[in-house]
This record gives sequence, structure tokens and C-alpha cells, in this order.
Amino acid sequence: MATQVSTPKGTRDFGPNEMAKRNYIFRQIKSVFDSYGYSQIETPAMENLSTLMGKYGEEGDKLLFKILNSGNYLKKTRSDDFNPDELAKLTSKISEKGLRYDLTVPFARFVVQHRNDITFPFKRYQIQPVWRADNPQKGRYREFFQCDVDVVGSKSLLNEFELIQIVDDVFNLLQLNVVIKINNRKILEGIAEAIGAKDKFMDITIAIDKIDKIGIDEVMNELRTKSLSEESIDKLKPVLELKSDTDGSINFLETMLADSEIGKLGIEEIKKIFTYIKKFELGTEIELDLSLARGLNYYTGAIIEVKSKDVEIGSICGGGRYDNLTEVFGMKDVSGVGISFGADRIYDVMLHLDKFPQEINISTDVLFVNFGEQEELKCIELAKNLRKNNLKSEVYPQKAKLDKQFKYADNKNIPFVVIIGEQELVNGNCKLKNMKTGEQLELPWDEIASQIID
Amino acid sequence: MATQVSTPKGTRDFGPNEMAKRNYIFRQIKSVFDSYGYSQIETPAMENLSTLMGKYGEEGDKLLFKILNSGNYLKKTRSDDFNPDELAKLTSKISEKGLRYDLTVPFARFVVQHRNDITFPFKRYQIQPVWRADNPQKGRYREFFQCDVDVVGSKSLLNEFELIQIVDDVFNLLQLNVVIKINNRKILEGIAEAIGAKDKFMDITIAIDKIDKIGIDEVMNELRTKSLSEESIDKLKPVLELKSDTDGSINFLETMLADSEIGKLGIEEIKKIFTYIKKFELGTEIELDLSLARGLNYYTGAIIEVKSKDVEIGSICGGGRYDNLTEVFGMKDVSGVGISFGADRIYDVMLHLDKFPQEINISTDVLFVNFGEQEELKCIELAKNLRKNNLKSEVYPQKAKLDKQFKYADNKNIPFVVIIGEQELVNGNCKLKNMKTGEQLELPWDEIASQIID
Repeated sequence: MATQVSTPKGTRDFGPNEMAKRNYIFRQIKSVFDSYGYSQIETPAMENLSTLMGKYGEEGDKLLFKILNSGNYLKKTRSDDFNPDELAKLTSKISEKGLRYDLTVPFARFVVQHRNDITFPFKRYQIQPVWRADNPQKGRYREFFQCDVDVVGSKSLLNEFELIQIVDDVFNLLQLNVVIKINNRKILEGIAEAIGAKDKFMDITIAIDKIDKIGIDEVMNELRTKSLSEESIDKLKPVLELKSDTDGSINFLETMLADSEIGKLGIEEIKKIFTYIKKFELGTEIELDLSLARGLNYYTGAIIEVKSKDVEIGSICGGGRYDNLTEVFGMKDVSGVGISFGADRIYDVMLHLDKFPQEINISTDVLFVNFGEQEELKCIELAKNLRKNNLKSEVYPQKAKLDKQFKYADNKNIPFVVIIGEQELVNGNCKLKNMKTGEQLELPWDEIASQIID
Repeated sequence: MATQVSTPKGTRDFGPNEMAKRNYIFRQIKSVFDSYGYSQIETPAMENLSTLMGKYGEEGDKLLFKILNSGNYLKKTRSDDFNPDELAKLTSKISEKGLRYDLTVPFARFVVQHRNDITFPFKRYQIQPVWRADNPQKGRYREFFQCDVDVVGSKSLLNEFELIQIVDDVFNLLQLNVVIKINNRKILEGIAEAIGAKDKFMDITIAIDKIDKIGIDEVMNELRTKSLSEESIDKLKPVLELKSDTDGSINFLETMLADSEIGKLGIEEIKKIFTYIKKFELGTEIELDLSLARGLNYYTGAIIEVKSKDVEIGSICGGGRYDNLTEVFGMKDVSGVGISFGADRIYDVMLHLDKFPQEINISTDVLFVNFGEQEELKCIELAKNLRKNNLKSEVYPQKAKLDKQFKYADNKNIPFVVIIGEQELVNGNCKLKNMKTGEQLELPWDEIASQIID
């Protein structure tokens, strides 16, 4: 009896079938990023805690996986450090590194560290796992993959439009129906100003961000606990409930934000982005959604979120414009804009809608049945030739019962089986079985490839 | 002035150029693994320490990166646990997880955990980073990638030969001159028997493994400290110094190991593997090297190591047959054989020999110069069309001085630049500049793709 072994809580293995599907998603996303001239980078799994701490709020600091220092990790501690009430202090003495929590902060660190080698505007993408010590639940893991694409060093709104093009291309390739929702932090700031709650801007943003989860009334209640006045709330609610097309929303905003400088800037930005969108008709539905806020506090301009139109799962892609991300590492005035594709959620949506192409599950095209020493040698030779024709081929590694070898082909979803027995070894032929149709042909050795490829 | 930020000691960022080269290596290796019908899997970065501890020797346990438990990690401790002399005990109370140290143990855990879903013989590969708290030095990192390929659940020596074919294919594709060295643990065991030191087999293996680093005399000295008799040493030394071709070595062994059952088994295995090798002439030089030992104690049969013939860097690929790897997790009789490609060393060899193809450094095929609002719109449209022709295309994100935009193209190694100014916007033409030759053509918009592809 085998021991109970498992992966740590909230983490997963990916077997051959899952990997084939995941690689399909990554391949499509990567091909789109590549086609727009973005370059891939990778950063280490571990970062110094000085890089990570304080970037994700107090809650985020707690969710960082921290790594024990090597060797005698107690050497900086004193006996009164072992106090559960001052855990953070002890942690800082026994741990200097943590696992990355997202790809954004490591990217900001990368830009600052390599600023002299980087060609700006810097168009980069990064596809790597991140780790969070969150409580695992359905669809939420402690290790998951992010696919981030960003341009830094350019304030042009063409970048925002390019990211929207990328979203459009990716979900077209994956054949998923999505809606792209756009808003602008400057507009939200203008709204806060217009409702007389300029100082409550972050509270408003954080509350609005929950609108999908808790509903508008709860959002309003939360804002009451943050001391937003009833007058402000009465002015805010209709904005969030506004049902209008983009032009209508913009008209509404132009009146409402007529006295807000920052609000007017936001409107200008949104109008420019929608000029591009209207000029180049994209396949994807795109809407201005004034109730879109996104909780992260580093956004300063456009914000973007993508939702599946067929599966209820929250956003599957999101991002926005940030003006000060590298400032925390001492490098000012590097504006950037980026989006992140949630590979795990996209996987779930694809699986639910059965959108993965059949052929990606084929890891081997041809299996050669093994009848023993002499036959095997011929099979090795023929398999080698098939590989030269880009047919993935394997020889069953030992002599075994025929039904066992066929079961192996079946389990591995191998579409063709070649049989060379004693007789075929003499007559220079083989039997080629199509595992899907059950059809079996006899043909000369050198016609296997052409028969399969046809 | 920007803050001093950096990656943790012994870890690295990979920028666009390095990633292009690394991806090239991974792509070639992956394509070979795929062509033999191996399936990719991935396991989490973190494993339970109960899975990892005790698998790599005492030294290995110390080199594991351990992760602090989440929340109040002191809750299982008592005040007398904070004792530097009993660090392991404290560690076990505050840390339950560690980063994987290699891909072999997680793979064994995977096989045991998923044994009911796996089709045996299971041909899998895995390309992921591993982490070791080693002292960093030139060519030795704390985070590095392994590319492992294994077959488990089959004792057939055809698997050994298939892995040799894979090595041959990979290094042919990468255009590296290598030599494949082969030996067999059973032969080494037979030799230990024949020199009257059967009980010293592991000491002998560990010592011989250092022969490249410290030389044969030091190896002999080390064995003296392990109480190997002078008589045994006198018998062992000529075996390790034997200069002979494979047939000669086998003849030598057949005499020397005539009385060793295990030794004779080893000879049988080696002879069978060399039968395959002789039958299917491979491009790569392959030799039986009786001084090859490999330190890892889980090998039980064939062992393989690959060295560059042009660069002194130690082994760039290695592996062997193991019979009991899953036994430690309670699953017996699952024999396997596998090899691991050292991507980081292969990278260094390729770089040293300048073996990376030029074209992999091209992340963008065509840059459209940006002259302003009107021109930009046309460029976005044309870039979109080029992407449909598989040409990676980007529009410079804002109006800027021409030399700045050309410098950008230069820095990014972009081979073609398209210029559409006020005049071209009217006459329907553009200027296409070949950045390598300096040649500049004027041609209609819809001929850009065909001109570049030709």
C-alpha cells in the first residue's frame, strides 16, 4: 500500500492532459503578445522581502510566502523576539526572501534595476506562477499563473488601444465570447469631486470594486461606514446605475464633471481611446462602465476588465494605466499601462464551454507494437523515419500481449498503430490501424508516413 | 536617484535577449521529447517537507529552501525550542513546506499520488526551475532549470537506448559536439566485489564521481580514508585508468567480473545497449567509461553523462536507471530510467561557441514610424494586416523625432521600418527601409508584406 502523499494545500499537479490544455492557452496568448512586438522576460520566484513588503497593503504582506534564511536563521534573534504578538518583527529577523505575489512589483523592480539596458518604450510580457497564502477555495489557488503584458515609458493612449487589440485577438483565437469593460481612474476622481467627496476617493474606489459581489446597496452601506454623506451617496448612486451607451455616458459625464479638471482629463482620455475603437471595428463588445473601479491603488488612468459572456466567473483579464509604479523604488516619471490574463480562470471557462481543440490531446501520432527483438529493431528504424516527417512516434518498449499494447495506445489517445510481426518482417509490409475508425490497411514500410499525413 | 534594488543572491532576471536564447534551447529540447511521445507534466514549486526531507542526504536537507508556515507560525513551538543547536527540530515546527530541490523526487511523488490515473509505461518530461541554498559561484545558481525526461514502469533496455537517441537528437539540433559516456552501477558493484570491497560500494561510487574534479590519486586517497585496503586500491586503479574501446573494456570486464553475479548482469545490460547503438549509427560519439559513477545513490543500472567536446564545463546532461525511486513513498517495483538536461550549462556552452541562430533575437519584424494622428491611424491598419501575414509588427506609440524612432528600431534589432508621412498618406505609398542593408524602397501599402517575405 502506497503512503498518502500529496501536493501542499492549494497547489496542484498538472498531468499530461491538463498540460496540453494549459500549453494551448499559453501558446495562443504568447503568439498574440509576440505579434505586437512584446518581448518576454522572467524574474526569479524569490524576491527580497524589502522589494515585496508594503506593496500589497497590510493584508497582502500577510499573504506573502516567506522563506526561512539558510544556515543558522536564529543568529539575528534575541530571546525576547519569540513573541506571537510581534510576529512581524521576528519574521524580519529570520526571513529575508519571499515568493513573488504578482508579476507587477517584480517587473517594476526589473525596470529600475535594468533601466540602463532597457530600450524605452519597453514592451514586455511575462508568464510565470505567483504564490499567495490565501485560504484555498474553488477556483482560488496558492500557486497560479499570470500572463502580464505591459508597455512602460510611454504615455500615449495608443498603448491602451493596443492592449485592447491584444485582448480582442486573444479571445478571438480562443473562441471565447467576452465583453471588455473600460473606465478611467481620473473620471472616478472627478466623480468623487463632483459629489463633494474628493477626500474619500480611495474608499469610493475600493467600495465600488465590490459592486459585482455584494450589489450596489451594500456598496452604499459600506460607504456610509466610511462617513460618506447621504448627499454624496444620493449623487453617486445614479452614476453607478447609469444604463447608457458609451456616447450617452460621455455626454452625462461632460455635464456632471464640467467643473472637475481631473474629471475632464479622464473624459478626454476615454474619448481618445473610443476614437481608436470606433475607427478599427473589433470583434469584441467594448463598453464604458462607470461602475468599474478595480481595487488596486496604483492605477491612475484607464482601467480595463474582461468578462466571459457565457460563464459566471468574475474577470478573466484586467489592468490599467499606472504613472508611479517604479517610484517606490526611486525611479520617477515612468508611466506604464498593462493587463494581466488569468490563465487559470480562462482554463476553467474553456473547459466549461468545451472550447479546447481535439487535436491538442494527441501526444503521440504513431505507436509501433513490439513483437520481440527482431521486429523491434525494424520498428525503431521506421519510427526514426516518421519523426523526420514530423510524426511523433514511439515503439512500445518491450514485447507484451497485443491487447495490452492496444490498451496503451487507447489510453494515450494515439490515433495510429503500426503492427510488424514475423510475417511482415519478411514481406516488407506492415499493418496500419486507424484507432478512431478501426480501419486497418496493409502497406509497404515506406508508405506509412504518406498514408498518415494524407 | 533610484534605490539599489536587486534579485536575491544567486538568482537572476532574464531579459528579452536571454529569454530568446533560453526559449530556443527549451523549444529544441521539447520538440525532441515530443517527437518520442513523451508527455509534459508540471508539479508545484512547493512540496511538503515530508516529501523532500531525507531524499538528498543530510547535506541536501540543509540546502532545501524552507517556507515559513502562514499565520502564527510560532503556535506549535515551546520556549525551549529556540535553540541554535537543535535547529532542525525548531524548523520542523515552524515550516512544513519547501521549494523543490530537483524534479526527480516530485516526479516520484507524482507517480505515487496519481498511480491510478497513469498509463504505464509512463513517458513524461518536465521543464521547471529548482532551488538550492548552495553558495552561489560562477555557473552555480540558487534557482536554475532542469529538463527531465523519464520512462517509469518498464525495465526494457530499449528505454535506455531511446534516451541515448534523444540526447543524440537534441545536441544535433543544437549543433553541439558532445560525447555520451555510459557505465552501469551493476558493473561498479561487480568491480567492488572483484576487488574485495563489496561493503564499500557506495564509498567507491561517491569517490569515483569526483575523478574529474580532483584526479585519480586524490580519489584513491579519499578511499584510503574510507578504509579501503591497499590491495583493493591496487586492483581498482587500473580499472579506472583503462584506456580501451568499448569491446576491449567489455572483454576486460568479462574476465575481471567472471565470479560476480551482479557484475555479469551489468555486462549483459551494457552489451544489449551497445547492440542498439551499433545497429543504429548515431552521429554522437558514445563510449563505455568505467570511471563514470554519478554520485546519486538511487541509480541501480545504466548511468549516462554527456560532456561538451569543445568547452570545459562538467556534464551538461546526465541520468540513469533507478529501480526503487517510488519505494520511499510506499510503491514498490516501479523501475524507471531518466536523464536531465542542464539548460543553464547548455546555455553557457552555446553562448561560448556562438551557436545561437541570429534570427532568434528578432522580436519585431516591422516598425511603423509614427508621424502623428492621421499617419498613425493608417499605420495601425497596415500593422494589423502584416500580423495576419505572420509578421510581428508594431507602431511606435507616439509622434517622436525620426532619429529617436530609428534608434528604437536599432536597439530592438528590428529588421524593417515603414515610413508613412503626410505625402505617403496622400499617394498611397510608403517607404520601406531594410535596417541591415540600409536599402530603402518606395512601394504601395499593400505590397509591404510580400516585399518583406520574399
